[in-house]
Amino acid sequence: MPGRIVLYNVPFTTYAQTVPYRTDGPSRAAALGAVAALVRSVGPPGLRTPHTGALQYAADQPRIPAAAIATEDAERLQRMQNRGTRVRVRLRMDAHFLPDAESFNVIGEIRGRERADELVVVGGHIDSWDVGTASSDDGAGCVVTWEAVRLMKKLGLQPRRTVRVVLFTNEENGLRGALDYRDRYRDQLPNHVMLLESDTGIFRPTRFGFTGSGAARARVRQIATLLRPLRAVTIGPSGGGADIDPSVRAASIPAMSLDVDGNYFLLHHTETDTVDKIDPDDMARASAAVASWRM
Amino acid sequence: MPGRIVLYNVPFTTYAQTVPYRTDGPSRAAALGAVAALVRSVGPPGLRTPHTGALQYAADQPRIPAAAIATEDAERLQRMQNRGTRVRVRLRMDAHFLPDAESFNVIGEIRGRERADELVVVGGHIDSWDVGTASSDDGAGCVVTWEAVRLMKKLGLQPRRTVRVVLFTNEENGLRGALDYRDRYRDQLPNHVMLLESDTGIFRPTRFGFTGSGAARARVRQIATLLRPLRAVTIGPSGGGADIDPSVRAASIPAMSLDVDGNYFLLHHTETDTVDKIDPDDMARASAAVASWRM
Repeated sequence: MPGRIVLYNVPFTTYAQTVPYRTDGPSRAAALGAVAALVRSVGPPGLRTPHTGALQYAADQPRIPAAAIATEDAERLQRMQNRGTRVRVRLRMDAHFLPDAESFNVIGEIRGRERADELVVVGGHIDSWDVGTASSDDGAGCVVTWEAVRLMKKLGLQPRRTVRVVLFTNEENGLRGALDYRDRYRDQLPNHVMLLESDTGIFRPTRFGFTGSGAARARVRQIATLLRPLRAVTIGPSGGGADIDPSVRAASIPAMSLDVDGNYFLLHHTETDTVDKIDPDDMARASAAVASWRM
Repeated sequence: MPGRIVLYNVPFTTYAQTVPYRTDGPSRAAALGAVAALVRSVGPPGLRTPHTGALQYAADQPRIPAAAIATEDAERLQRMQNRGTRVRVRLRMDAHFLPDAESFNVIGEIRGRERADELVVVGGHIDSWDVGTASSDDGAGCVVTWEAVRLMKKLGLQPRRTVRVVLFTNEENGLRGALDYRDRYRDQLPNHVMLLESDTGIFRPTRFGFTGSGAARARVRQIATLLRPLRAVTIGPSGGGADIDPSVRAASIPAMSLDVDGNYFLLHHTETDTVDKIDPDDMARASAAVASWRM
C-alpha cells in the first residue's frame, strides 16, 4: 500500500517526555493520513538498538502499522530527507494480536507478628516485552523483591506487619495484574501501609523514591537509618510504579520505588535486555535495601 | 542435517589473538566432525552486537557453515551447557559466494616539486564488510587520507616528493587491491619512501605507529614536530596495515599507521559501524595529522 510513512525522529530526553511519540504517535499520524509510522528508539543512542514497546491506538483512527527503529536508522532517514532524497521504505512486519490467555499475579507473604492485618507490599512485574530476555524489565526487580522476603524468613526477622511480595502480571500490555490486585484486595487497601515497586532494572541501588504524607515521610526517614550500611541509599522526592499506582491512587497509600544507577532506558524493551547486564553484588545490595522496609 | 555444532565462546583480548577463532575455527571444527560453527563476537561486549568477518576454509576439510553470534548469546549457550541442558540450535543462513566482479584501486597524487619519482603513499581501503555502512572500516580512513592530500593542494603545499593517495579495493576478502598495487607498481616500490594506512577508524588521533630503520625513525621524529599543534600525537613502536603490508614487505619500505582513541573493535564488522560514530572534529584533526607526512 503506497502512501506516507511518518517517522518520529525525536531525541530522547526522559522516558515520560519522549515515550508519547511511541504510544500515541501512530494514531496521530493516522489522523493525518499516514499509512504507517516509524518511531526512533525511546532511549539513549545504543549500538543500532531498536527500543520497542506498547502503543495505544485511538478508537477513531485507522490502526496503522507502527515499528521501532534504531537511532542510527532514524538519523539516516533524516539525513536523506534533509538533502532532498526521496525516501522509500517498504515495511514487512509480522506483529499481530493473539487471543487473551489466562495468567496470574504471584503472591507470597510473611505474616506480621503484631499487626498481621496491616500490609507492606513489595514487588515487580513478571511479564515482559517480547525482545531480549527481560532481565532488567523486570526479571531482576522480581527476584530482588522476592529475595528480600526470603532473606527476612531466613534471618528469622518476623516483621510487625505482614510483608507481601507481589509479582504482577501483564504490566507491559494493559496493567491487568495491577488492576486485578486493586480490585481483588479492595477491602484490604485501607490496611496497606506502603507499596514498593522495583521496575527500573537492578544496578547499584541509590535511593528509594517516596510519595506520601509528611508524617509517612518522617517515618520512612526513621526506617531509612537501616540503609546506612549500604551507604548513599537515600530517600528521594517521589515514588511509585505502573503496577502499584492503581492501588496507591485508590486508597492514598504511601508509595515507594527502588532507584538505581544504571542504563535501564538503554536496555529495556530491546534485545539487549539480558542477564549479563546484571551484577550479582548489585542484586544482593538491592535485596538487602528492600528488606529494610519491614515496618 | 543433525550433528555437532561447535561454539567458540572465547573472550576478546586483542584482535590478533582472538580473530583466529573466526578465521580458522570453522575448519578446525570440521576436522573434528562438526557440521557447523558459531563464533562469539571477536570484540568487546556490545549491545547484542554480532561481529562478522572473513574466514579461511582449509583446503582439506569440508566447508561447513559458520556464523557470528553476539557475546550475550554465546554466554547464554554456555550457561545452558554448563547446567547440563541439551542445547539444540537450528541454523538458517543465506550467506553464499557470488562470482568475482571487476573493481579497482582508486589513486590520486600530487607530484613532488623536487623528487617527483619518489613516493609517499597514504590511504585506506574502499571496500567494506557487508554489515553496517562501514564508516569506521574503512570509510573514514579513506576520507581522511584523501582529505589530507586535498588540504595540501588547497593550501598550495607542494611536497618535495610525490604524495599518492591510494584507496585499496578488496581488503576484506583477499587483499587483491593490496597485491595488485604491489605487483603493478613493483618497479616503483624501491622509490617508495613511506606507506601509511588508516584502518582502525577515525577517533581522536593519538599517534602514528612506525616500522622502519633507525635512520628512518629519526627522520620521522623530525617531521613529527609538525604534529605539535595537535598535541599528544606521537610516534609509536610499530606501523603497517593489511593493504600496505604486501608492498612494505616486498621492498622493506618504512610503514606507518594512524592510531586513534576509540572503540573500533566494538564497531567494525557489525551493523553498528555507521557514520554517527564519527566526530567531524576528529576527522579534521586526523586529516591534518596525515597531511604532515609530506616529505
